[in-house]
Amino acid sequence: MIEQIKEPYLLTPGPLTTSHATKATMLRDWGSWDDDFNSVTADIRTQLLAMAEAASDEYACVPMQGSGTFAVESALACATDPSGKVLVLMNGAYGKRAAQLLDMMGRRYVTLDKGDYLPPQPQEVAALLRQDSEITAVFLVHCETSSGILNPLDVIAEVVSAHGKTLIVDAMSSFGGIPISLAKTPIDVLISSANKCIEGVPGFGFVIIRQTLLAAGKGRAHSLSLDLHAQWDYMERTGQWRFTPPTHTVVAFQAALVQHREEGGVPGRCARYTRNRDALVKGMRALGFSTLLEDEWLSPIITTFLSPTDPAFEFDTFYAALKMRGFLIYPGKLTEVESFRIGCIGQLGITVIALLLSAIREALADMDVSLTADPRSA
Amino acid sequence: MIEQIKEPYLLTPGPLTTSHATKATMLRDWGSWDDDFNSVTADIRTQLLAMAEAASDEYACVPMQGSGTFAVESALACATDPSGKVLVLMNGAYGKRAAQLLDMMGRRYVTLDKGDYLPPQPQEVAALLRQDSEITAVFLVHCETSSGILNPLDVIAEVVSAHGKTLIVDAMSSFGGIPISLAKTPIDVLISSANKCIEGVPGFGFVIIRQTLLAAGKGRAHSLSLDLHAQWDYMERTGQWRFTPPTHTVVAFQAALVQHREEGGVPGRCARYTRNRDALVKGMRALGFSTLLEDEWLSPIITTFLSPTDPAFEFDTFYAALKMRGFLIYPGKLTEVESFRIGCIGQLGITVIALLLSAIREALADMDVSLTADPRSA
Repeated sequence: MIEQIKEPYLLTPGPLTTSHATKATMLRDWGSWDDDFNSVTADIRTQLLAMAEAASDEYACVPMQGSGTFAVESALACATDPSGKVLVLMNGAYGKRAAQLLDMMGRRYVTLDKGDYLPPQPQEVAALLRQDSEITAVFLVHCETSSGILNPLDVIAEVVSAHGKTLIVDAMSSFGGIPISLAKTPIDVLISSANKCIEGVPGFGFVIIRQTLLAAGKGRAHSLSLDLHAQWDYMERTGQWRFTPPTHTVVAFQAALVQHREEGGVPGRCARYTRNRDALVKGMRALGFSTLLEDEWLSPIITTFLSPTDPAFEFDTFYAALKMRGFLIYPGKLTEVESFRIGCIGQLGITVIALLLSAIREALADMDVSLTADPRSA
Repeated sequence: MIEQIKEPYLLTPGPLTTSHATKATMLRDWGSWDDDFNSVTADIRTQLLAMAEAASDEYACVPMQGSGTFAVESALACATDPSGKVLVLMNGAYGKRAAQLLDMMGRRYVTLDKGDYLPPQPQEVAALLRQDSEITAVFLVHCETSSGILNPLDVIAEVVSAHGKTLIVDAMSSFGGIPISLAKTPIDVLISSANKCIEGVPGFGFVIIRQTLLAAGKGRAHSLSLDLHAQWDYMERTGQWRFTPPTHTVVAFQAALVQHREEGGVPGRCARYTRNRDALVKGMRALGFSTLLEDEWLSPIITTFLSPTDPAFEFDTFYAALKMRGFLIYPGKLTEVESFRIGCIGQLGITVIALLLSAIREALADMDVSLTADPRSA
């Protein structure tokens, strides 16, 4: 256990810094079988549908124990036709992971791999759907935190819908922080997790899925624990999770939802994250850092900065210097260039970003790294 | 959210009542990638091996996100040879579930089904192993909470070992509360979870597995998320969980381990649970209830009581009357007779059991149920 070190801010794509109010709900134990807990589960399922603007007679919300990947695995197993083929749009680790998941469950797929950070173009997707009539579903990562890119969900969704295919969206790091409306955008499956923009603690994910797809998914699962249809069916019949839920995490999530609403819902949260991102990018450019992406593609979730070319810059030293000052940042995930990432989500605002920027300035001085301000910071 | 209701005691087989000290550790957020958190993971893995008296050069401890079933699924996928056959010893829901897991992952198995509550006999197991040379592994539930029976682990283990087969033990509800020594008892795989006798909060399970089996399990997984070998391999290489861990739950578990040690480890905890069970059984018999099992088979984890035959007794009413008084009990899980279950584990002692017995007396009076004391209570 660490002693006498101030709890650091987590400037990561989650697990992130959560509010004391959210964590304080975990000071109580709940019977996982009891009606009081079942009411919490029912409430969060209803609230998540509302947040997605998903009609409750067309969609269902199904939580799933484990990390976000567990939820993605359960969703892919349920929502992809074993005799069909999935087009996986890739530009980072999470698109790659979806392909790996399909591989392991023996589902066929093709990929459109845009490398480290380029967005898939709607016309490319349209061309692939025209060329290969066996494709039944398209998988897209909304915000690919590997680079921080916000992929063009709406235009891709229109193309997929126009071709009559199923759209599965990994909105892990965006849902709750960036507006997504299932009433306006044709999305069939949307996956996210507790410890992202809704600012809960980690322990479960959830899938918002068209009910017709859920029904078709009965018996398709490759895993008992990750059987999304069975989880839904059991929950509908009993109000309970099929296997022991992470009770404290679930109750903390309900508290996080209250605070999300109080902040003005998705628009309110998006506004704060955008302010964080803008202050961060502006301040970092003033210090001499460059963003990997052009402004158009920067998400308000996490930003990738290129590592300075000054040989005095060393990521591990930089990380340690910032940690000592109370901030945890994230290493880069690019294959071709050295980089690091800084998240804008969690319980923090521009005051914290300003403190972070001071800490970064100090860390650079400690390391004797000299940079020239990016002209865009002016 | 419930208001002004005292937090109830959870007299269930977990999630159970945990200490304030354990829950209070969850008031802090941790970076799932950071060294400080990695140290916590490393520490709990080491402590769990020590608790099982498992030599660290022969066994590995691999935590797995999700409920206990997720851990059992990952263990079965890793430790059972796809070309072999598993003998599943069943006397309740958790033996049945193991068979269902093997079924879904396409592994062959045979069962010895003893019905609701009879223990498997070593000579029966020996006969099956002699008859069917294709059997490569045996699966046993140590404490089957469906009935509360403590199955005869040591004698079964000797038989399985004498036949040179792999023994996989679901020790979900017993590990940490009932002595199990991998140095003394030939067990190859032992599975448990955070929210049982170690008294953590729910969110992950763990598998203690012979390293040779783990190595053989590489590439056997049917699921990416539940790939035990890959989780182990990633953890060994990076110190991190492969996918986002339930950070707060993990840190709470470390605190629970400290308290477990302070109570005198497994013997200390077993002594308290045994006192709870003895006080409960004695008091319940004095009130006129009968246990399903003979004393020899009663675990110190959970006890099944037969529902009174008095038609005035109704479980839901009884449950609500006890809940109102601050106690959550558990419904029965027997197929043939009406019953209910009361757990003895969690942060509670004989004072709480005495309060529970008073509450039960009041509930019976409220319901106008009259019982005659069991002669064994004298």
